[in-house]
Amino acid sequence: MKPYTPHPAANTPTRGHVAFVGAGPGHPDLLTLRALRALETAEVVIHDRLVTADILSFASPEALMIDVGKEGFGPSTPQSEIIALLVAHGLNGARVVRLKGGDATIFGRLDEEIDAVEAAQIDWSVVPGITAASASVAAIGQSLTKRGRNSSVRLLTGHDMKGFADHDWTALARPGEVAAIYMGKKSTRFIQGRLMMHGADGATPVTLVENASRPDERILASTLGTLPADLAAAEMNGPALMLFGLAPRAARATLTHLTEQELA
Amino acid sequence: MKPYTPHPAANTPTRGHVAFVGAGPGHPDLLTLRALRALETAEVVIHDRLVTADILSFASPEALMIDVGKEGFGPSTPQSEIIALLVAHGLNGARVVRLKGGDATIFGRLDEEIDAVEAAQIDWSVVPGITAASASVAAIGQSLTKRGRNSSVRLLTGHDMKGFADHDWTALARPGEVAAIYMGKKSTRFIQGRLMMHGADGATPVTLVENASRPDERILASTLGTLPADLAAAEMNGPALMLFGLAPRAARATLTHLTEQELA
Repeated sequence: MKPYTPHPAANTPTRGHVAFVGAGPGHPDLLTLRALRALETAEVVIHDRLVTADILSFASPEALMIDVGKEGFGPSTPQSEIIALLVAHGLNGARVVRLKGGDATIFGRLDEEIDAVEAAQIDWSVVPGITAASASVAAIGQSLTKRGRNSSVRLLTGHDMKGFADHDWTALARPGEVAAIYMGKKSTRFIQGRLMMHGADGATPVTLVENASRPDERILASTLGTLPADLAAAEMNGPALMLFGLAPRAARATLTHLTEQELA
Repeated sequence: MKPYTPHPAANTPTRGHVAFVGAGPGHPDLLTLRALRALETAEVVIHDRLVTADILSFASPEALMIDVGKEGFGPSTPQSEIIALLVAHGLNGARVVRLKGGDATIFGRLDEEIDAVEAAQIDWSVVPGITAASASVAAIGQSLTKRGRNSSVRLLTGHDMKGFADHDWTALARPGEVAAIYMGKKSTRFIQGRLMMHGADGATPVTLVENASRPDERILASTLGTLPADLAAAEMNGPALMLFGLAPRAARATLTHLTEQELA
């Protein structure tokens, strides 16, 4: 990384740098060293709502912190305004960190923001982060791929700009398939319906990991057939990742059960 | 994390802990803070060949370092021996780090190792890492998913225990599909043939990222039609990830070109 340059006067033509940084799933320990350094040296941090306070506290006390409140596909700050902020601070010569939950390249609307920064001839970089799928599968002690079971895994969204997202349900319905479904909680009935219509077994394991990696992480072990009822009973309010085709290891399921008892 | 416990005498019944740690794609900055801490406090580190010396140097000078030389699907140490090492050191009460390139849950043969450690009643955990797909797509300035283009992305292997891995080529051949293909370099002709047979356009962009995130990273921008010839001309010898359906951003392609000129 280039050495830190102090904020130049507004009339200096020097352009800044925008780093698109993946903040990981929430636990500050799951930041990369590069993300930590970018945060520590940023003059402006433009962050989504899902980034935790523990992570934001790594930024310098002098940094300008801007919460753009984006959550999944429901931004509270319009994308055009986020882009205007990135460009304005970049052109002003600031060292900007655009902090996104998880990995910015996975369901992060990264392209629109890079397009704008690039058009303004501002230097930029992407710092990869731990995506929710990795953190969730680690929490249940399983793998996204496994010899003899699946040699591919899909990351998909339950929800896109047009509403429920359509996918290749026939392929997903086959035995042994594994998918990590982002923003899938609200589309549970839609996903269940589509998969069962295409022949998926109702006994296929489905695990929901809410607030993966955070102190309030919860694991819900369910099946495709019982998913809507199990999810309603669990009353999950936080962001959750759905792992289709995977059940938690026995040891991990017990752990969650104990945690739930302790919290009760 | 639990506090560090000194190595107990061999006849103490205390069992150790095995942390399955993702080392990321190679650059030490792309380790997570949790992985760094696990490495720093490990008494035994059992690592794959693809983990770089820079990363191994984070371990304590007193740690026992064991290179099990595993590379993709061609292990030089039999899996049974790796498992025997994990169990022996775990039962001996050691704090063991099993360090794997990228993310251990993606093409990492994690399950077999957890099964054995769990059967020996040794405590374990999984520390997620940055997978090659994230680092590679960050290097070319693109996203794995994009609104209006693809609402799902596949991570797949070109090669599995049976040889070339078969996949849902019909689905992948559709316009706008994106896949990150691990260990795909040797199966280039097979993948190209299957995709074109299923109607994929020869002009579909395909990018290879060799040694993603490392000082010797190289980006090869190609297309499905010209891939085997382009790859042969590029003489890539390091591990490479294939990004099907993605071309580097113009700025990033230029950067690689310049780097190649500087190296020449």
